[in-house]
Amino acid sequence: MRVAMNLLYAQAGGATAVINASAAGVIASAHERHPRIGTVLAARYGILGILAESFYDCTGIDTTALAATPGAFFGSCRFDMPTQEEQPELYDRLFAVLDAHRVGTLLYNGGNGSLEVVAKVSEAARQRGYPLICVGVPKTIDNDIEGCDCCPGYGSAAKYLATSMREACRDLASMTSRRGRVFVMETMGRNVGWLALATSLAAHGLDDAPHIVLCPETPFDEARLLARADAVISRLGYCAISVAEGIRRTDGSPLMAHTHDTVSEHMRFGGAGGEVALMVSRTLGCHHHYAAPDYLQRSAGHWVSAVDHAQALAVGQAALDYVLEGRDSIVAVIRRLGDDPYRWDIVPVEAAAVANLERRVPQAFITDDGMQVSEAGRRYLAPLVEGERPTNCARGLPVHSCNTLPTLPQKLPPWPGWGREPTHARRG
Amino acid sequence: MRVAMNLLYAQAGGATAVINASAAGVIASAHERHPRIGTVLAARYGILGILAESFYDCTGIDTTALAATPGAFFGSCRFDMPTQEEQPELYDRLFAVLDAHRVGTLLYNGGNGSLEVVAKVSEAARQRGYPLICVGVPKTIDNDIEGCDCCPGYGSAAKYLATSMREACRDLASMTSRRGRVFVMETMGRNVGWLALATSLAAHGLDDAPHIVLCPETPFDEARLLARADAVISRLGYCAISVAEGIRRTDGSPLMAHTHDTVSEHMRFGGAGGEVALMVSRTLGCHHHYAAPDYLQRSAGHWVSAVDHAQALAVGQAALDYVLEGRDSIVAVIRRLGDDPYRWDIVPVEAAAVANLERRVPQAFITDDGMQVSEAGRRYLAPLVEGERPTNCARGLPVHSCNTLPTLPQKLPPWPGWGREPTHARRG
Repeated sequence: MRVAMNLLYAQAGGATAVINASAAGVIASAHERHPRIGTVLAARYGILGILAESFYDCTGIDTTALAATPGAFFGSCRFDMPTQEEQPELYDRLFAVLDAHRVGTLLYNGGNGSLEVVAKVSEAARQRGYPLICVGVPKTIDNDIEGCDCCPGYGSAAKYLATSMREACRDLASMTSRRGRVFVMETMGRNVGWLALATSLAAHGLDDAPHIVLCPETPFDEARLLARADAVISRLGYCAISVAEGIRRTDGSPLMAHTHDTVSEHMRFGGAGGEVALMVSRTLGCHHHYAAPDYLQRSAGHWVSAVDHAQALAVGQAALDYVLEGRDSIVAVIRRLGDDPYRWDIVPVEAAAVANLERRVPQAFITDDGMQVSEAGRRYLAPLVEGERPTNCARGLPVHSCNTLPTLPQKLPPWPGWGREPTHARRG
Repeated sequence: MRVAMNLLYAQAGGATAVINASAAGVIASAHERHPRIGTVLAARYGILGILAESFYDCTGIDTTALAATPGAFFGSCRFDMPTQEEQPELYDRLFAVLDAHRVGTLLYNGGNGSLEVVAKVSEAARQRGYPLICVGVPKTIDNDIEGCDCCPGYGSAAKYLATSMREACRDLASMTSRRGRVFVMETMGRNVGWLALATSLAAHGLDDAPHIVLCPETPFDEARLLARADAVISRLGYCAISVAEGIRRTDGSPLMAHTHDTVSEHMRFGGAGGEVALMVSRTLGCHHHYAAPDYLQRSAGHWVSAVDHAQALAVGQAALDYVLEGRDSIVAVIRRLGDDPYRWDIVPVEAAAVANLERRVPQAFITDDGMQVSEAGRRYLAPLVEGERPTNCARGLPVHSCNTLPTLPQKLPPWPGWGREPTHARRG
């Protein structure tokens, strides 16, 4: 009886270039297991879409096109789920919706915070006697999920940023200048430097860009940065620096003034790279350029890592396997079996054991001076960006051709807890 | 005798993703014409490299690898060439260097300012009785060379930016928000909006990003921008805006405070996109994201337009043909013969007739409200981004494998006019 219930898939947190490959892994595997698994539903905008009873029917979806589409195809959200004790009515609503749509399986695809949702919903189901299997599918360009050797989404963002750094520095090296030049690229990473560190793959040797990498894991030291930049510019005529948006001074204060976003309850960063560029430029009297790829680094579907894409697909498939084994409140994580040749598999870990932790870059991956990747770090990073995938283009631009899906009629009264939402969200 | 003299090629101005395809076109064609053309030399850092007598011998170059390398492989410079009347000693030096290396042909690859160098040097050679054929090869991502239907370098930057806009907006559309979201991407373009306009190729229809495009050709009107952004966010939940870095208010003042760079004598822009993002965010109370691809838009060798690459190669080849025809002081420009199917050829125009002009986006390419591309603009833009090229990768990242070249021994005393220069510039 239980296996014939419906499966609900949802996406949460910031999108990645390959999160839809995980969706495709889940959905295609579930469709293969029909009728053991009933209808595959997808929530529009994550947990908020579940509460709002906003569902797509995935029966007719083109999973191949889906897997090649960047962004969160079904819509995502940022929502800090309270506990059942804090807000029982939220859970009343949640399980009423799940029950109304005969949902027996919830697959939640997200980062640290989203894996906590898995643990909380699973626990609440147990307490309420609701027959639910809840499994987490990891995803984050930040690469900071504990217990996961690497996170789907990270490898593609890393590949994009390392490629961009290598290419931009062909340009940087092109121009002569008596004063010297500094180029700064700011990567995402509020608390962790995984993405900034990944740009170091662009370099073959010490004279190659990026010459300096600044991560939040190492306190920012202006004098040391300036001394190093000066030395590099004296030697080469230019210097390229990767800066994680969240770098902090020794007293823990962010380099850039940040604002507290009252809606998302997240700190908003941005501008640390520009600040570093100006700092170097003013002190050393050199030209400066500053790039902030922002969304581009996590949505570059035309340049994903084939390894990352395969892993994103595989965690979705593995999560479905765990569902069929009846394993609840776990997460399908990637385990590394070897560096070179790179080998990996997928294993389950307890959602509660890894939820809401944050895996920072280990000191062993950063050189002693705090400004470059170590050999151990390079060994870790190198395989994650490997391999290219063809991009489906029309008239010179990538085509995201996944089909529009029917939405399900609502069976419950509207949920008052969620106000205005976009009247339309693009799917095609 | 004259045809057995050496050929000198030089690059000038900001690099592009395909300028080295033009170099490859020149060099491979010249090598085919040996011994009618002697040794092919390339100046390191443009006209400044000529004055400094800093030359590479291109005899053994791998032109296929060269054509696939972004950046200005031989080094470039920004240098406003004075006239012979203003600074005769500069021309004394220039012709002494050309004579010392038996240069009978100068091919100068650059934008508006560089084409003026072609006209000036050609005129000076005539006055001095120095036997020189001087031909310009156009290049600029800004697409603002007069008399050239499109400029090599533009199509690839346009393709990169339109792709980035389309992909980033998959991400933008992924996230739900009660407050709405605005995403701004700032493109290069101090005086012209060609690159901002090109992002509009990302849209299939009115609801697709970018919803607003701001070019310097249309005075910036804050109230109209805010009204339009508000309407788009009300309808979709989000709004994507492309902003050229040089947009100006109705009184002609740039939106962003700019600084005058005392070395390059160029205005430095940057930040107009961030300003627009904050303006919308503060007024409408929505979330904002801001991307500034900077160098990335002109160096993305992994995602060049095949049409652009073919044209860059072809202008180099055509320039060599003009040399063999003995045509002096001309530029090889692209002429459009048809929109759809796209057809083009290359014709010579007088360097003096197009030098230092600036082709702005015609009003007919912008909608009447000044915030979008017109159908005529779209017809113009569409063919320029077409086609993809394979990227040579190793371990997941593009490889720029052009071989290191020998430099020529200097025959003259050092030129005192050019001070410190980088002791090393990467070539490999």
